[in-house]
Amino acid sequence: MPVPDLTNGPVRPSELDPAIAARLRRNPDGLVAAVVREDSTGDVLMMAWMDDEALHRTLTTGRATYWSRSRGEYWVKGATSGHHQYVRAVSLDCDGDTVLVTVEQVGAACHTGTHTCFTADLPVTRADRGASA
Amino acid sequence: MPVPDLTNGPVRPSELDPAIAARLRRNPDGLVAAVVREDSTGDVLMMAWMDDEALHRTLTTGRATYWSRSRGEYWVKGATSGHHQYVRAVSLDCDGDTVLVTVEQVGAACHTGTHTCFTADLPVTRADRGASA
Repeated sequence: MPVPDLTNGPVRPSELDPAIAARLRRNPDGLVAAVVREDSTGDVLMMAWMDDEALHRTLTTGRATYWSRSRGEYWVKGATSGHHQYVRAVSLDCDGDTVLVTVEQVGAACHTGTHTCFTADLPVTRADRGASA
Repeated sequence: MPVPDLTNGPVRPSELDPAIAARLRRNPDGLVAAVVREDSTGDVLMMAWMDDEALHRTLTTGRATYWSRSRGEYWVKGATSGHHQYVRAVSLDCDGDTVLVTVEQVGAACHTGTHTCFTADLPVTRADRGASA
């Protein structure tokens, strides 16, 4: 199979601090992944995508803002649902392609109405006991 | 900007249960995102990628296994570093493009030697107080 191009994707115009922008490694669509975690519980709520401007708005407005790949537009979480995400912290990972966004979540994080998007457990058929063994 | 193609990417040959495979929505490289969380602490450790076979191996061997986009090969976490990830649970998200992998982490999750990959805090310059206000 082909190895995907891991070079940096396109940078759209943005007000993002250039010092932060320089640390991002974007996918071919110009996006970084955003893993969203609830501050109070530590629950992983959802995964979404940000371009530079979505990250800028997230850092400067206090509201988690994503790039909707399906709609091709910015998406302020909760703007239509009321399920706001108040931003508590944002961290970038070691290779610059993922941010961890810690939020205070109002209501359900998932558009299906559940607290988190990760509700479908898959069967782990061999659990190595590891260090607990 | 162009809207990325969100149709399902290629499916490589795999032993993955077809009932699970049918629920995945792969990116154009045939991969789903894997968010990795530590069982004992709830810390989000890292983000990586899986194709069907990597998910199959993760579910059936008890060791977190990813697809290395840079090397173009399967990657059993800890195989070279000793920093094993013993799989405790795997959940699929609502739209089938991300799995949450809960692990028992041995040693550092990050190749840089830190506990998690998310060590670079970005400045949140306006924190809306939200429900706490």
